[in-house]
Amino acid sequence: MASLTLNRDRLFPGDPAMRAIARAIYGTVRHLPILSPHGHTDPRWFAEDIPFENATQLLVTPDHYVFRMLYSLGVSMEDIGIPPSDGTPYEQDPRTIWHTFAKHWYAFRGTPTRMWIDHEFSDVLGIKVRFGAETADEIYDAVNAKLATPEFRPRALCERFNIEVLSTTDSPLSDLRYHKMIMDSDWSGRVVPAFRPDSVIDPEYFPDFHGDVEKMGELANEDVSHWQGYLRALEARRRYFIEHGATSTDHGHPTAGTADLETADCERLYQKIIKGTYTPDEAELFRRQMLTEMARMSIEDGLVMQIHPGCLRSHNDTVYQRFGRDMGGDIPVRTDYATMLRPLLNKYGNDAALNLILFTLDETSFSRELAPLAGHYPSVRLGPPWWFLDSPEAMMRFREAATETAGFYNTVGFNDDTRAFLSIPARHDIARRVDCSYLARLVVEHRIDEDEAHEVARALAYDLPKTAYKL
Amino acid sequence: MASLTLNRDRLFPGDPAMRAIARAIYGTVRHLPILSPHGHTDPRWFAEDIPFENATQLLVTPDHYVFRMLYSLGVSMEDIGIPPSDGTPYEQDPRTIWHTFAKHWYAFRGTPTRMWIDHEFSDVLGIKVRFGAETADEIYDAVNAKLATPEFRPRALCERFNIEVLSTTDSPLSDLRYHKMIMDSDWSGRVVPAFRPDSVIDPEYFPDFHGDVEKMGELANEDVSHWQGYLRALEARRRYFIEHGATSTDHGHPTAGTADLETADCERLYQKIIKGTYTPDEAELFRRQMLTEMARMSIEDGLVMQIHPGCLRSHNDTVYQRFGRDMGGDIPVRTDYATMLRPLLNKYGNDAALNLILFTLDETSFSRELAPLAGHYPSVRLGPPWWFLDSPEAMMRFREAATETAGFYNTVGFNDDTRAFLSIPARHDIARRVDCSYLARLVVEHRIDEDEAHEVARALAYDLPKTAYKL
Amino acid sequence: MASLTLNRDRLFPGDPAMRAIARAIYGTVRHLPILSPHGHTDPRWFAEDIPFENATQLLVTPDHYVFRMLYSLGVSMEDIGIPPSDGTPYEQDPRTIWHTFAKHWYAFRGTPTRMWIDHEFSDVLGIKVRFGAETADEIYDAVNAKLATPEFRPRALCERFNIEVLSTTDSPLSDLRYHKMIMDSDWSGRVVPAFRPDSVIDPEYFPDFHGDVEKMGELANEDVSHWQGYLRALEARRRYFIEHGATSTDHGHPTAGTADLETADCERLYQKIIKGTYTPDEAELFRRQMLTEMARMSIEDGLVMQIHPGCLRSHNDTVYQRFGRDMGGDIPVRTDYATMLRPLLNKYGNDAALNLILFTLDETSFSRELAPLAGHYPSVRLGPPWWFLDSPEAMMRFREAATETAGFYNTVGFNDDTRAFLSIPARHDIARRVDCSYLARLVVEHRIDEDEAHEVARALAYDLPKTAYKL
Repeated sequence: MASLTLNRDRLFPGDPAMRAIARAIYGTVRHLPILSPHGHTDPRWFAEDIPFENATQLLVTPDHYVFRMLYSLGVSMEDIGIPPSDGTPYEQDPRTIWHTFAKHWYAFRGTPTRMWIDHEFSDVLGIKVRFGAETADEIYDAVNAKLATPEFRPRALCERFNIEVLSTTDSPLSDLRYHKMIMDSDWSGRVVPAFRPDSVIDPEYFPDFHGDVEKMGELANEDVSHWQGYLRALEARRRYFIEHGATSTDHGHPTAGTADLETADCERLYQKIIKGTYTPDEAELFRRQMLTEMARMSIEDGLVMQIHPGCLRSHNDTVYQRFGRDMGGDIPVRTDYATMLRPLLNKYGNDAALNLILFTLDETSFSRELAPLAGHYPSVRLGPPWWFLDSPEAMMRFREAATETAGFYNTVGFNDDTRAFLSIPARHDIARRVDCSYLARLVVEHRIDEDEAHEVARALAYDLPKTAYKL
Repeated sequence: MASLTLNRDRLFPGDPAMRAIARAIYGTVRHLPILSPHGHTDPRWFAEDIPFENATQLLVTPDHYVFRMLYSLGVSMEDIGIPPSDGTPYEQDPRTIWHTFAKHWYAFRGTPTRMWIDHEFSDVLGIKVRFGAETADEIYDAVNAKLATPEFRPRALCERFNIEVLSTTDSPLSDLRYHKMIMDSDWSGRVVPAFRPDSVIDPEYFPDFHGDVEKMGELANEDVSHWQGYLRALEARRRYFIEHGATSTDHGHPTAGTADLETADCERLYQKIIKGTYTPDEAELFRRQMLTEMARMSIEDGLVMQIHPGCLRSHNDTVYQRFGRDMGGDIPVRTDYATMLRPLLNKYGNDAALNLILFTLDETSFSRELAPLAGHYPSVRLGPPWWFLDSPEAMMRFREAATETAGFYNTVGFNDDTRAFLSIPARHDIARRVDCSYLARLVVEHRIDEDEAHEVARALAYDLPKTAYKL
Repeated sequence: MASLTLNRDRLFPGDPAMRAIARAIYGTVRHLPILSPHGHTDPRWFAEDIPFENATQLLVTPDHYVFRMLYSLGVSMEDIGIPPSDGTPYEQDPRTIWHTFAKHWYAFRGTPTRMWIDHEFSDVLGIKVRFGAETADEIYDAVNAKLATPEFRPRALCERFNIEVLSTTDSPLSDLRYHKMIMDSDWSGRVVPAFRPDSVIDPEYFPDFHGDVEKMGELANEDVSHWQGYLRALEARRRYFIEHGATSTDHGHPTAGTADLETADCERLYQKIIKGTYTPDEAELFRRQMLTEMARMSIEDGLVMQIHPGCLRSHNDTVYQRFGRDMGGDIPVRTDYATMLRPLLNKYGNDAALNLILFTLDETSFSRELAPLAGHYPSVRLGPPWWFLDSPEAMMRFREAATETAGFYNTVGFNDDTRAFLSIPARHDIARRVDCSYLARLVVEHRIDEDEAHEVARALAYDLPKTAYKL
């Protein structure tokens, strides 16, 4: 039976001289607190602090990284325990699902998921044997036993992980009750919401758009039947989020398109949108105008603005219809930034009061458009490589592509962007190791002095996200 | 006079620890049989087993990798021995052409062609001196002497190369007589056809489209003047190919576009296509619909489906008009997959009975679209980097870009895709060396255990192509 | 106080064996003369040979690499000493600007600008301490003291830098008086102009287009109110440039689009262009036709033709309106070559009398389109990675992407493309080091013999630019 250990030099370059320097730089940042300013954990976990149920519920069923790979190998969504909306039966025994996972574990070789979960097994859960069909039961039982102990409750883990701030991502309609419970509790942990208004901005992708806008109007006590009331309602919800700790907004649009329309045109467009009489081009134009409005509001209320365009959501109709959104069928597409962001940037891009963080799923944009934008506009910063680009290779390619034109100081450190709470330390550790490896190469190639590399490493791990996200 | 030797550690990483591990992994796969499921050798060679004529006919004239580079340096096609269709004279003395090749050999430095031909010279043909103007005659004579011996006949080389299966690529109108001769012979070699129906699907690029469709109808005994008869004729030709050993189809469309039209619309469209009254958009729509039809047929008859879009064929009009197609003037263009394949994938992508292998000439699609598609849809697998991307660097970039999201097990091993029979062992050897080097880096960086790296290496070299191509 | 030294092994690979080979190869090319066939220095410097004013005027204010980064960090253009066109005050004290630069020097860590300026400080200016807030004054005074000495006048530096040829980039209306002064002087340096006709070809981006065309007509004594006269005027200006030493033209179009219109259509289109009654599509069509005309003229008069498309100029309206063009707001965009260049290449691409050098800001085009074009058409060569791609990483990616299909001998060596005269040795040194590092890797991986690597290194550093630019 193979053993499981995390080598202390993992991810460092093979060359001994480079490795020694990487290790030295990493030694100064490995214990820095984790700032997690962009993620998808459930605030209820930390509000109620109830134990996680079992290994399957924690590590398999909620993680689209896991089930998209299993599905690609021919495992049905039902066998992974995802309930179909049509009521057909699905596997509900967590141990059986765990066995299915174990049987296909080989296919994760070389992927970040393999590294994250090995880290979770070894470092968080104390497992000493390699996962697989042979050890599935042993590990399942061991994990469940741990999860039942007080040390493995959400708050205790948050402290053990040394998480200084954890941001969730929240509906604009959310009452943020769990964030409030956490704020009002005697727990010192800081779990803040992020304002993600897509469902009240994108009429095409959200079937409940109209109802959600109505609800937003009620919550804000504004008349959302016209443009100005709609804007005021959004402003009110942003204020509500700020009162509950939010420092940022998050916008997942299909494109990075922005617009700068006259007010009268906005009103006319909004009437079509809210009445459902719009064309696809009008829906896109509305989303574009709204990004510009959001930038204006960010300048006014100080919320940091994040844009991550370029995903064709729910590419797989059958999976979407039977299992809903976020089920592994999102596929990136080619994404333009320079032309698309120009209206917004020409209006607000020179205002240093705007903190605009750009993400991409199309890594060709790093050297071509994103680093040039971040290396010129005072408002623009580059988000880290994420989702589909969160492997060590892609992180390294990001530094190699972006540093030339944006430098290190127009980037914002790492985001884990995860629903998988236990993977947070693993993900941040990988990012720190990769950045230290990149810096070690610069040192060995005499492109940066070692004392400066130490300063950069600290900035990437802690200072830059703290400043960029106003934490 | 410089000597020619193949270093046993070629292509392994420079770092000694990494190199030792690469060598160890490679040691376990280097002697595995070659599966060559996608290529362009001539089945007649193996059917008739007649000797190759001379070094020039074998290594220069048929290889567009060779003559495109020579042409780029100002050597005329005539001087390479390519006959112009306008009847102007061209060089017919193979030794003179060989001298021209030798004189420009320096320009191949750093290219895969240089590595392949050095491998052929050294390992296959026993040449001990470096090729060049000085050694051209000596090598020419030595090669020709070898080619005249029984050990250098096609079948003997096939055995010596340890080729378990070799697939050719064939016209849908082919009677596959050479494949039949091979099957009926007492030779144990396995040379199978692949069904490449482009000439009866793409009315724009194939001037004989109408005549070829007519001929297909006759061969299949179907009335191809209407849509259903046309489809049945294609189905019949596929059956004929299956009877002669085929396990796959191959589709070289300009784009990855697919469509899902109603039957009545298909009939109307087909009438325009077959009558030659179509617009360019209708020709593209027809090709799109046909990819979807081909996927349906693949589910029905079990042929593995390969799509390789994104080449602007015969970019150079003058070369095309004077020398015909496949003369080095094909240029890749930007290629989208996620939006383009959606109609086909929404119809058939969830059916594991479909084996859809995707290729690209636009490597930006690996991390952005292809790995995400292969890492989600049970039907989709990623073909290896090929044509314009068959260098060690591009192979390594493929693993670095695709493994994160598709893993290793949604890829299908290596394809040599070559007309240059003698280069097959060189090409597979390079692929194995690069994959082992990538795995060695993962081992040294503690991202995979060494025993697992061995399993992956074997999968990439043998198991995955065997399964993916149903060999 | 940290010291500043340039390590002799900087930029070589970390692996000791690879580094030793890189050092050996570099040793044979480091002292070769510099050919700088594409740049933006001021010919007046060499004509009048007056001393540079001070460190700020030399290193900060004219360098858009420097001030774009400062601007991205929130430093105003006024504080960098850039005069706004609206007459608002701006910082005019060079020492104060120097302090601002020093304060933000940390942000250049890891960028090529940091390497270039460190090289200038250390190797050119004899500074022994690291630049920063602490050492700003000391370095400012030391640099200024040097600049006042005869050894630091432009001509003396040109000789010390071992620059064999230096090309400037010039308006088609220029009388080239400074080039003539240099030719007529007893100085042996060779400073040649390059013909950059964008301002008389692109009616959209150049507000003075109409007046500039008129002036060109006067200079050429041609009637530019019609198409043939306009072409003859351009031909005359090209002749004038050739008489003053030019060997090349340079074309900075928004796209790589080319066209091949009938003469009558050209005349009609030109009438709209010259009368200002064109649509944006017609302006683009005119630019496209003009690239094809320029290729024809190049075949006729022998000027090497350079095209560098794909930049969205002056993306930032506010900066453009207040500070003018070339102020750091240019952002690259996605760029297609294969389809766009086809009309030109089908007309003239097979003519070896055309020397067409292609540049890109979209590095995805290297492996997909540019290397395939250069590896086929006898007229096409690949320019080096430049502007936004002039880091060691991007240079290495260029070789890794382009060598497979274009080889080394369809590339043209290095261009520094700079306004920053003192950075020329640094930039060429980096390019030589990176190419030698790439070659060292090929040697260590047994992909090229060491004697051949030496030949390639010399070709890249000297022979290829000499031939490609007809120097």
